[in-house]
Amino acid sequence: MENTIAIPKGFYFLGKHIGIKKQKKDFGVVYSPEECSASAMFTKNQFCGEPIPIGREAIKDKCLQAFVVTSGIANVATGAVGRANAQKIVDKLANELEIPSQNILPSSTGIIGPQLPIDTILTGMDGVGDNLSRLNAKEFAEAIMTTDTKVKMHSIKVGGATLLGIAKGSGMIEPNMATMLVYLMSDAVVEKEEIHELLSNSVEKSFNSMSIDTDTSTSDTVALMTSNLYEVKKEAFAKALDELCLSLCKEIVKDAEGAKHTIEVTVTNCISKKEAKIIGKSIVNSPLVKTAVYGADPNWGRIIMAIGKVEEAHLDKDKLIIKLGEHIIFQNQQEITENFEKSKEYLQKNDEIKITVMMNTGVEEHTVYGCDLTEEYVEINGHYTT
Amino acid sequence: MENTIAIPKGFYFLGKHIGIKKQKKDFGVVYSPEECSASAMFTKNQFCGEPIPIGREAIKDKCLQAFVVTSGIANVATGAVGRANAQKIVDKLANELEIPSQNILPSSTGIIGPQLPIDTILTGMDGVGDNLSRLNAKEFAEAIMTTDTKVKMHSIKVGGATLLGIAKGSGMIEPNMATMLVYLMSDAVVEKEEIHELLSNSVEKSFNSMSIDTDTSTSDTVALMTSNLYEVKKEAFAKALDELCLSLCKEIVKDAEGAKHTIEVTVTNCISKKEAKIIGKSIVNSPLVKTAVYGADPNWGRIIMAIGKVEEAHLDKDKLIIKLGEHIIFQNQQEITENFEKSKEYLQKNDEIKITVMMNTGVEEHTVYGCDLTEEYVEINGHYTT
Repeated sequence: MENTIAIPKGFYFLGKHIGIKKQKKDFGVVYSPEECSASAMFTKNQFCGEPIPIGREAIKDKCLQAFVVTSGIANVATGAVGRANAQKIVDKLANELEIPSQNILPSSTGIIGPQLPIDTILTGMDGVGDNLSRLNAKEFAEAIMTTDTKVKMHSIKVGGATLLGIAKGSGMIEPNMATMLVYLMSDAVVEKEEIHELLSNSVEKSFNSMSIDTDTSTSDTVALMTSNLYEVKKEAFAKALDELCLSLCKEIVKDAEGAKHTIEVTVTNCISKKEAKIIGKSIVNSPLVKTAVYGADPNWGRIIMAIGKVEEAHLDKDKLIIKLGEHIIFQNQQEITENFEKSKEYLQKNDEIKITVMMNTGVEEHTVYGCDLTEEYVEINGHYTT
Repeated sequence: MENTIAIPKGFYFLGKHIGIKKQKKDFGVVYSPEECSASAMFTKNQFCGEPIPIGREAIKDKCLQAFVVTSGIANVATGAVGRANAQKIVDKLANELEIPSQNILPSSTGIIGPQLPIDTILTGMDGVGDNLSRLNAKEFAEAIMTTDTKVKMHSIKVGGATLLGIAKGSGMIEPNMATMLVYLMSDAVVEKEEIHELLSNSVEKSFNSMSIDTDTSTSDTVALMTSNLYEVKKEAFAKALDELCLSLCKEIVKDAEGAKHTIEVTVTNCISKKEAKIIGKSIVNSPLVKTAVYGADPNWGRIIMAIGKVEEAHLDKDKLIIKLGEHIIFQNQQEITENFEKSKEYLQKNDEIKITVMMNTGVEEHTVYGCDLTEEYVEINGHYTT
């Protein structure tokens, strides 16, 4: 995929090893010489990382010029020292790039608890301004990885403009908002007044509809900067942003810790989008549904259990239809027995599983994204050492 | 434990193989010749089993004489045929015992979807009235088991009376109410006006504070019958009922599918009991906390993540203290490093893990019960066939 990545005009990148991790890249910068329109959304976790409040301040004027990311240590639960360290990184970068500190959005990802090796980082940052390049987007994408096994980058053309997204994330990912780190850049013209609504609409349909293990990270951030060089129709840009966010969302789910199948649950003909999302999440988060998909077992009983446990759902059992792929497995309050073997085969032969739940109580629908639960997930997280 | 079980006066039991399972016991009855004071609480899952609405009706007059349970097939999502089958079992038992149908509370547990082999069951029920015995409580306990590996029975003396509890359950167990099947019997005198409050108070502190995999079963039932032979102080009975429910709750958690450790999370000095319970559940349900306990990793970062993701929690990070066993691992916004190795050793050497979270924002507390997440849980549920 990297071969086909297009880079929007006006952005420069860096990804390098600075000394937080033993050997792998652990420091990344995205930079725009001109001030960009910008928006960002952050984790709702109350124990958020120390860079987050700095980012919240920075984004208030809807103007940014740089993202800076350290990986390996999350800078979470590090108190006043951690906050000061995050600010030192921002100030050092501001000095190197000769831009205001408040035009920089910082993030950190990795282990919770330890302090950053701040002296090592600051020394390693000497001269970063001279090492930025339009060719280094992939290096930036590598520098923000932790347990990810794959680089997650994607670009889309929209009119004369380009939209680029770079993401990381594979565990501790759930509902609330966020999800992981996602950096979106474009050279399209987007007004400051419109940028937040555009971003939040796309995030709701993608990252906020994704769930790997129901845990909500302390550092999740999705941020968008536009260098405002090419006029693009608002609707076209919105559509491209939706598509880009969904692609990155699917890449993250595919790379989820230990996952063998992705699961896409679409709840249709529902009384409201909100209810469709709650029901979808209940299904995609159910450990029993997740293990059934892993075992390629068309266990629709676990799906109806997960629907039924949503107390606020408007459920008419007589109208409910459940499909695995194209095969109706439950209708008229009973199993469609002739589709059982076909459903089993569908689960066995595909690694992107689609579950459709037709509530038939209304006209709204919503899709959520998740993955199965495997022994490997337990192994990765049972033996990841602090 | 079975050797020391005391049986309250006035109750007779039966547990036998009737032909739902291949060989194991799958049919059980508890019977009282006299009308008992009774209360019951059921799953809140909207896709509840077909016996549940019959039980809800039966309990309305707070009077019961029998429990009847089939295991192997849950009689869930079986529509009108399933409801009629549940009623046929009740009516047949009423006929055999010569008691009113509405004095019988039925349950079924097992696989969701298939219809009960009703003819086999009704034929097998011929003469059950003649095979009830005060000696067969253990046979009843065995007859209600599915994936359970251990019989779960416990009795307590309260004044001159006896309180007996028999339970089953090891997966698909979570919050809402219920949990599994729990039958409580006593020969104490309990007024009909008081029995529901007594039961619901005890259930809130035990079964409703327990969580194995966040999934809520479709058939959960907790029911209490008292044969009203011995006068006992209300407070003493309430205390004994609390103790009995907690013992059964801990036995269920210990027998959870694939679990290697039980986890008891006590949230203290909290602003309300409700908040303490929500925070406790967020911790005990977190897959990352569960796998950390499994791996004996004192990963307090995952605990603060689970606290922080409760958006409504009143959190003062400066006041928060986290203990693993007796060892403070987090205080004053940082790891208590000298306790790290002791905490690790505590996790390695114990299979009943206690996590204490001191919020220090108020005076209320609540304890919740759960277990770790292991490869074996995934294996059991990934390869359990419908």
